[in-house]
Amino acid sequence: MRYKITIEYDGTNLLGWQEQLDGPSVQDYLQRALSCFTPAEEINEAPLSDEEDEDASTGERLQKPNKIVVFGAGRTDAGVHATSQVAHFDLKEDLVDWKLREAMNARLRDMEAPVSVLSVEKVGLDFHARFSAKGRGYLYRILNRRAPAVLEKNRVWWVPVPLGVEKMRQGAKYLIGHHDFSSFRAAACQAKSPIKTLDKLDIEVCGEEIHFIVEARSFLHHQVRNMVGTLKMVGDGHLEPEDIKRILEEKKRSAAGINAPACGLYLTKVMY
Amino acid sequence: MRYKITIEYDGTNLLGWQEQLDGPSVQDYLQRALSCFTPAEEINEAPLSDEEDEDASTGERLQKPNKIVVFGAGRTDAGVHATSQVAHFDLKEDLVDWKLREAMNARLRDMEAPVSVLSVEKVGLDFHARFSAKGRGYLYRILNRRAPAVLEKNRVWWVPVPLGVEKMRQGAKYLIGHHDFSSFRAAACQAKSPIKTLDKLDIEVCGEEIHFIVEARSFLHHQVRNMVGTLKMVGDGHLEPEDIKRILEEKKRSAAGINAPACGLYLTKVMY
Repeated sequence: MRYKITIEYDGTNLLGWQEQLDGPSVQDYLQRALSCFTPAEEINEAPLSDEEDEDASTGERLQKPNKIVVFGAGRTDAGVHATSQVAHFDLKEDLVDWKLREAMNARLRDMEAPVSVLSVEKVGLDFHARFSAKGRGYLYRILNRRAPAVLEKNRVWWVPVPLGVEKMRQGAKYLIGHHDFSSFRAAACQAKSPIKTLDKLDIEVCGEEIHFIVEARSFLHHQVRNMVGTLKMVGDGHLEPEDIKRILEEKKRSAAGINAPACGLYLTKVMY
Repeated sequence: MRYKITIEYDGTNLLGWQEQLDGPSVQDYLQRALSCFTPAEEINEAPLSDEEDEDASTGERLQKPNKIVVFGAGRTDAGVHATSQVAHFDLKEDLVDWKLREAMNARLRDMEAPVSVLSVEKVGLDFHARFSAKGRGYLYRILNRRAPAVLEKNRVWWVPVPLGVEKMRQGAKYLIGHHDFSSFRAAACQAKSPIKTLDKLDIEVCGEEIHFIVEARSFLHHQVRNMVGTLKMVGDGHLEPEDIKRILEEKKRSAAGINAPACGLYLTKVMY
């Protein structure tokens, strides 16, 4: 049976989505939460695709016999959070959806994992969390005030200098649409093509916070954080809105601004 | 010079507002952040008053020579947060408001204190953070869903059973107004009178959260948490809305329900 799960996590003390040898990851916690179940015998063959996700720096392993592998829709980096990450895995057992959710959450709580299963749903074997995804949505939160973040520490990027929201919105317009995003791509990015279509980059003011709401079919590694870091430099006057156009055209990472810290980034939705 | 400050804190790892011998408190962090300044020579004489705050379990010390004492508007318990606590203190130095805020925040960051100074304002010597306050506002957050809290861990009370919001609102109506709140008062409460006027107790649904917005001139020790804990038992069907009336009339702590955990409570405003 194939199960689709929606999960929330606090990325602060995690090394990211992907299983790591040297510390805790979301994938590792979820696989350990499933260790009392039996892996299905089918092998998950990932279809060929050149679609890559934000932070997709390394390839994902295929399912090995005797081990349950959890496949995520987006492979978030260390420190990045999720309010609605989606993943799938195959079990031999045919379980009632809510009972599997409760069992996984009980195990995750025992491990004190900063990961919570919001929902479980049975899906067909043609569903793949990553390759069936038609789009991903991210939220980036900046706390823009003089006083350091306390209640929202590790949840926002604290920027103490005032940011010009209108200027950032003008700069953001150049990023919307079909472009070569090489300037906003991490050196480690393994995507075959730097050409992506950015569907949405809205900037909203929420009290003392500035929210960047970003959507695309897929993203290059660090693309969202590089775009936010560069737009922040428009907001604080280091760059002009028109510089975003020039930076896109230069097609090299050194042209763009800083990489915004991981702690402000949330994977908020995966569309199928 | 007397300074009024507005502060935010994450109460998770604090023993509460008041200076303690055995661990960190908000008052202690603020006093340490001011240690490079000189205490004013005047002694703060607190006016006589029988007004007590939520969690006002013990008396506050008066200013001693050679020590700056920070007086808070509400003495929150261990684990309770604040988005807008107010306090005052006297310094010999005549400082520019924003420079004092920056100096305090720099020191608080050096100490890795979960406390941030939002604003500093010079006030007259007749201002007293606690005794000049005309009202206090609290927010209590319940996360009402099956999946455990992860991103909001230590920020909300996680209640996995569905709560009936309309029933809680019906019960809350009995608490509004001028009553003897003995049933909702901690054993340790030192207020002279258990009679208080509750001005507001609104219950709002915000996504997966239920928010209790509470306002009064002052509160008994644990009053907000005891009211929320008892209303939660109305929400989950252990009590009927009408039981709140009976509990108030019994005027004894054993009549009411559980004390809601500290982590969901926020001091959100102090009115002058």
